[in-house]
Amino acid sequence: MSRLQTEEQAVDSEGDSSLHRRNEEGTQSSHRMLGFSDALLSIIATVMILPVTHTEISPEQFDKSIQKLLATRIAVYLMTFLIVTVAWTAHTRLFQVVGKIDDTLALLNLACMMTITLLPYTFSLMVTFPDVPLGIFLFCVCVIAIGSVQAMIVGYAFHFPHLLNPQIQCSTHRDLSRRHILHLVLRGPALCFVAAVFSLFFFPLSYLLMVTVIFLPHISKATTWCKDKLMGQRESPAHDMEPFSIDLHAPLSKERVEAFSDGVYAIVATLLILDICEDNVPDPKDVQEKFSGSLVAALGAYGPQFLAYFGSFATVGLLWFAHHSLFLHVRKATQTMGLLNILSLAFVGGLPLAYQQTSAFARQPHDELERVRVSCAIIFFASIFQFAIWTTALLHQTETLQPAVQFGGQEHAFMFAKLALYPCASLLAFAATCLLSRFSTAIFHLMQISVPFAFLLLRLLVRLALAGLQVLRGLWPHHPQQDQSEPEAQSQLLPDPC
Amino acid sequence: MSRLQTEEQAVDSEGDSSLHRRNEEGTQSSHRMLGFSDALLSIIATVMILPVTHTEISPEQFDKSIQKLLATRIAVYLMTFLIVTVAWTAHTRLFQVVGKIDDTLALLNLACMMTITLLPYTFSLMVTFPDVPLGIFLFCVCVIAIGSVQAMIVGYAFHFPHLLNPQIQCSTHRDLSRRHILHLVLRGPALCFVAAVFSLFFFPLSYLLMVTVIFLPHISKATTWCKDKLMGQRESPAHDMEPFSIDLHAPLSKERVEAFSDGVYAIVATLLILDICEDNVPDPKDVQEKFSGSLVAALGAYGPQFLAYFGSFATVGLLWFAHHSLFLHVRKATQTMGLLNILSLAFVGGLPLAYQQTSAFARQPHDELERVRVSCAIIFFASIFQFAIWTTALLHQTETLQPAVQFGGQEHAFMFAKLALYPCASLLAFAATCLLSRFSTAIFHLMQISVPFAFLLLRLLVRLALAGLQVLRGLWPHHPQQDQSEPEAQSQLLPDPC
Repeated sequence: MSRLQTEEQAVDSEGDSSLHRRNEEGTQSSHRMLGFSDALLSIIATVMILPVTHTEISPEQFDKSIQKLLATRIAVYLMTFLIVTVAWTAHTRLFQVVGKIDDTLALLNLACMMTITLLPYTFSLMVTFPDVPLGIFLFCVCVIAIGSVQAMIVGYAFHFPHLLNPQIQCSTHRDLSRRHILHLVLRGPALCFVAAVFSLFFFPLSYLLMVTVIFLPHISKATTWCKDKLMGQRESPAHDMEPFSIDLHAPLSKERVEAFSDGVYAIVATLLILDICEDNVPDPKDVQEKFSGSLVAALGAYGPQFLAYFGSFATVGLLWFAHHSLFLHVRKATQTMGLLNILSLAFVGGLPLAYQQTSAFARQPHDELERVRVSCAIIFFASIFQFAIWTTALLHQTETLQPAVQFGGQEHAFMFAKLALYPCASLLAFAATCLLSRFSTAIFHLMQISVPFAFLLLRLLVRLALAGLQVLRGLWPHHPQQDQSEPEAQSQLLPDPC
Repeated sequence: MSRLQTEEQAVDSEGDSSLHRRNEEGTQSSHRMLGFSDALLSIIATVMILPVTHTEISPEQFDKSIQKLLATRIAVYLMTFLIVTVAWTAHTRLFQVVGKIDDTLALLNLACMMTITLLPYTFSLMVTFPDVPLGIFLFCVCVIAIGSVQAMIVGYAFHFPHLLNPQIQCSTHRDLSRRHILHLVLRGPALCFVAAVFSLFFFPLSYLLMVTVIFLPHISKATTWCKDKLMGQRESPAHDMEPFSIDLHAPLSKERVEAFSDGVYAIVATLLILDICEDNVPDPKDVQEKFSGSLVAALGAYGPQFLAYFGSFATVGLLWFAHHSLFLHVRKATQTMGLLNILSLAFVGGLPLAYQQTSAFARQPHDELERVRVSCAIIFFASIFQFAIWTTALLHQTETLQPAVQFGGQEHAFMFAKLALYPCASLLAFAATCLLSRFSTAIFHLMQISVPFAFLLLRLLVRLALAGLQVLRGLWPHHPQQDQSEPEAQSQLLPDPC
């Protein structure tokens, strides 16, 4: 749990929280509002994959216009995902400074959300009419509107300081920290203002500026990271001396990273069933004509689609499971881990495309090899970035991870196995399709269906290994390290809280 | 926050939570898994409105087949919403008994979720082929599968009692409580088994049994409520004597009610922008031909749609805001409040339909009166059920509400105004369309756009009233009750935690 969160809980558990609320005149914990914003932002980021999957690709009509439409829609999805995650990061930062909310802030936040939902539309305009500057102009207007609302939130919160995070409330550098957060919030909109002006007479420059806005936070993160590596983190003592900046450079709120990720996984899992319900209910006329009234036979024709659905849901569910297992043992989410998480989620958001690819097997069996490979690649990248989160966390393991999964910890090997399962399985499937290109579909389905069992077996194998260790310990009683930890664990295995 | 939640937090804040986790061999707090399940279930419940809104209704083709398709899809939406909320309630009950999870339970829960996502498809089959028993048979198979997985979860948790809620873990009636929860979990699947058998030779009876399964929990809730009212709640002392049953009859977890509602509001708000992005990007050819290359003119044609989007987003956002304000002051969510909340959410889920209705104005202006009325009715029912939650809570105000919003509390009048705003506004708009049927569209848009300002003014008005009270108190110093409370509030207005 993040620092902010635990502080809030401390305040809540201090006594009767209603007393607090009444006394501070409508001040509320921001917890639920942030959860709602996370859900909204994660859904907006992901839902633009739907127009991509709704683009029908049949080889007969696979002409340039369809190809262009598909490329357009994929571009909209990626740009939306990127910009929404940037907005989400700024939102997280902002509400690490603003600790509590009241009704006005809740309404301002809703206005901010509404403006963010308009961004995908401006992208759609931009990629459909790349030569017309209107799209980029509207995008800039949106970003400026978001920035203004966020600046209003900052101004309001600093005007009523009891809304601020207690750490900043007490800081002597409060003015400085206001300037700092305003700079963070208005940096993008300022660039967009310039871009909007240029869009009126020389719009290619606007596109360049827009790219800068999107990548600015990531670039600055990367340079900070490189600097840290090269300079050997000489900056950290400076942070300690300036209490206000600790918070602004702090790791992301772990709870919000989890909430955002959950939203993405949940919507991806649900988009799959939407496709099934819209496309795979046979038409009564067809059943009468083609299958002589037998509904079972008609459904049998959709067999491959159902197999693809089960496989895709299992993949999404188990990627969530691996993510959940990992973050259970994460103490703090650093900015690099946040970035890797977002990259992983971008590919998870592409999974409905993989489903679409595999469910199309039945209709166009001749280009199945390419489709299987695209699917394998999407799954591979989604899972390898998860694995990268774990390796990045291991670099600073004492800060970022629980002791159990650090090097030499009890769960270390198990966590490694859990996170390595999907990258290995998808690589293996990819390699197998190269060797046995004839059976690529069978290989892919086999992979999707066997991995859940592998997860279950993983647990059993660890259990077996533990049992084996216990037997070994019985045979070989002088094993100092384990003797210290195991009996304690044993005695706590069935705790008696009564 | 629910009792369960606060207990978990107490455990977490007791010391280093990693120690706990390691000692109990992979036991984890169920918090995040429940959040993910809530998100998934709320999205599945709501997303079936999408096929309804995607049904194009143009008056030229408004023949019987389209009408039937629309009715079919609305039926699927309503049935899905109902059955998913029933499944969600059972899930909540189950995880009030199972307090902690491990990897096996997390995987079993994913299997349960996957089976639940298949339910909408069986409904689609059922309403498309009402005379073929296959749909109802598959539905029954799904429910039996869900029941089996949930029974496995119960069996597993009672086999490793450290996974149970501490209260049940300590109870002497543990076996009795296992039987009780198994009965709760397997009641529906048992009925469905009978229905599945009947579907093979006399399927109308199956439909009857299915309706029983869906409404069973609601009927039993209603009868319990009526009994309580008639008998004057003579049962409550009996609960206190049997510690295991307290938990099974306990109010719903307030946090899960909030999470489920947030999911519904978030997905509804996002479906709107999806429609905008898919339908309202003009085609480059059209722009060239009809608007002589002017993109601004082409977008101008979509003006009414954008107005409808802003209005709908504001409506969803402000209904969430009212819900959020209400639940901030709710201590416990009783079962009746949960049921009213679900009814409110079912209408919130219908809001994209209202958007679709109002955005169609531009195309078919001649039947706008009916469309406006449908929209007003949807908004009215969504908000009046919210208001009903509040009045129901007031019936047992000492248990269910914070002191500030109880009768005579400081925020009582403000909360009343907040929750009454939308029912009044939509009724007013409906009445206005009856009198001034010519201006119905204008009235509706005016209503949607003026309500946000009314919310802002509400806050200002309360501020003004409070200031007025202070002035009055200055003139009239001997007002005993307020003198006691106000100075305290005043001194705490800007607390100094430093």
